[in-house]
Amino acid sequence: MKLFDRPGFPNPARIRIVLTEKGLDSEIEFVPVDLIAAEHKQRAFLEKNPVGVLPVLQLDDGTYVTECTAITEYLDNLDGDPRLTGRTPREKAMIHMMQRRAEAEVLDAVGHYFHYATPSLSAELRAFKSLDWEGREIWGRRERDRALAGMTTFDEVLQHRFFLAGDTFSMADITLFAGLMFADAAGLSATPELTALSSWRTRVSNLPSVKNRSGQAFEPEDLQRLGF
Amino acid sequence: MKLFDRPGFPNPARIRIVLTEKGLDSEIEFVPVDLIAAEHKQRAFLEKNPVGVLPVLQLDDGTYVTECTAITEYLDNLDGDPRLTGRTPREKAMIHMMQRRAEAEVLDAVGHYFHYATPSLSAELRAFKSLDWEGREIWGRRERDRALAGMTTFDEVLQHRFFLAGDTFSMADITLFAGLMFADAAGLSATPELTALSSWRTRVSNLPSVKNRSGQAFEPEDLQRLGF
Ligand SMILES: N[C@@H](CCC(=O)N[C@@H](CS)C(=O)NCC(=O)O)C(=O)O
Ligand SMILES: N[C@@H](CCC(=O)N[C@@H](CS)C(=O)NCC(=O)O)C(=O)O
Repeated sequence: MKLFDRPGFPNPARIRIVLTEKGLDSEIEFVPVDLIAAEHKQRAFLEKNPVGVLPVLQLDDGTYVTECTAITEYLDNLDGDPRLTGRTPREKAMIHMMQRRAEAEVLDAVGHYFHYATPSLSAELRAFKSLDWEGREIWGRRERDRALAGMTTFDEVLQHRFFLAGDTFSMADITLFAGLMFADAAGLSATPELTALSSWRTRVSNLPSVKNRSGQAFEPEDLQRLGF
Repeated sequence: MKLFDRPGFPNPARIRIVLTEKGLDSEIEFVPVDLIAAEHKQRAFLEKNPVGVLPVLQLDDGTYVTECTAITEYLDNLDGDPRLTGRTPREKAMIHMMQRRAEAEVLDAVGHYFHYATPSLSAELRAFKSLDWEGREIWGRRERDRALAGMTTFDEVLQHRFFLAGDTFSMADITLFAGLMFADAAGLSATPELTALSSWRTRVSNLPSVKNRSGQAFEPEDLQRLGF
């Protein structure tokens, strides 16, 4: 299998964690995509994913799979033991519910804020982002507020649970973790008062599949190219 | 099990179709929620779903499950034959990929347009929607354009496939179908030139699980209350 991604970026990081959790790193050929140069908005990439985002998994028969949820379902089910996406109907329900909330209320909200309301994009990428769109600051602020509110909601959930969907680490935790990585890069860090969220984050950071990653969105070189 | 929903509305319709597909209608007690009177934004409902949207499934042990993807995973896996969400890793991948795209690019885009850029909301609901938000027309227009572009993308996919994720009807088709129902109500109907999309829609409309529903978002009484 091939994975088209960019190390360090938040959505690609979701799949990197899944691969390590499932012991599949060695099955994958990693193909870097230069997101900062907007390679993912050019024709060759859009043929793989018409939505123009990373990561994309290519199966051995050539099929392209996009969307982290879909890629995770695929990889997690290969060995017949889908512990990241749920083994029972009930586990699947809790994991998909919390995953979707983490995606909508934190990860994607931060992404919208970052792409539309901060200047932190390369010139090549800016051309695709309607950064001159008049409503951007209003919308960007709304998305920022949504992301911060989402963190508070998850802090409440995590006061009663060890991981987002129950007692074990799942796809839902991976999504929220990526959301917080991205939030750091966008300058939207969770306030330290969210202590349950913060303990959970430490717990996730110490998992073997997560530990050896920087936990930061974007490699230093990419940060520089983004103008940080 | 209990389903908190409102007949006719697009996201609730997704689960109604799943229930009929899986032969589970008789297992459910349906509890109507008066969305138009903003019952879903009041405390009693927010305790079931902090995001404040419908549908919500309550399991027999009291657990609330929200998000149509999560509810569908639950119901589809109860009988051990998850044909709507995928039996093999590959089916799961294709279905989750197309489902997520249909949600992001059509159903949710239409919802944003409807809620933020049209006047079609009851006074009670408007209070929760920042309809006075200055950026709404610009953002609303962007979401409308995204929805219309999404329909075109799916028309292309459906030129090569009988259903969105392959040869059989799945959760992905249900999401897109609900998106088109909602689009009709919002005045964003797909143009008739999208012939593959249109044939697919007829095909879905004729499925027994879909046929006896109106195929329209909103019941006549609700439409009237919404000011149509
Ligand atoms: N919903 C998608 C999100 C993917 C996504 O937004 N990826 C980012 C990288 S972290 C991207 O490619 N952004 C490029 C852009 O928006 O221009 C998924 O689950 O894969
Ligand atoms: N992502 C949610 C979407 C649910 C949703 O938006 N439901 C609509 C009804 S079709 C709703 O409750 N809207 C009320 C509102 O936004 O105020 C899901 O999959 O269940």
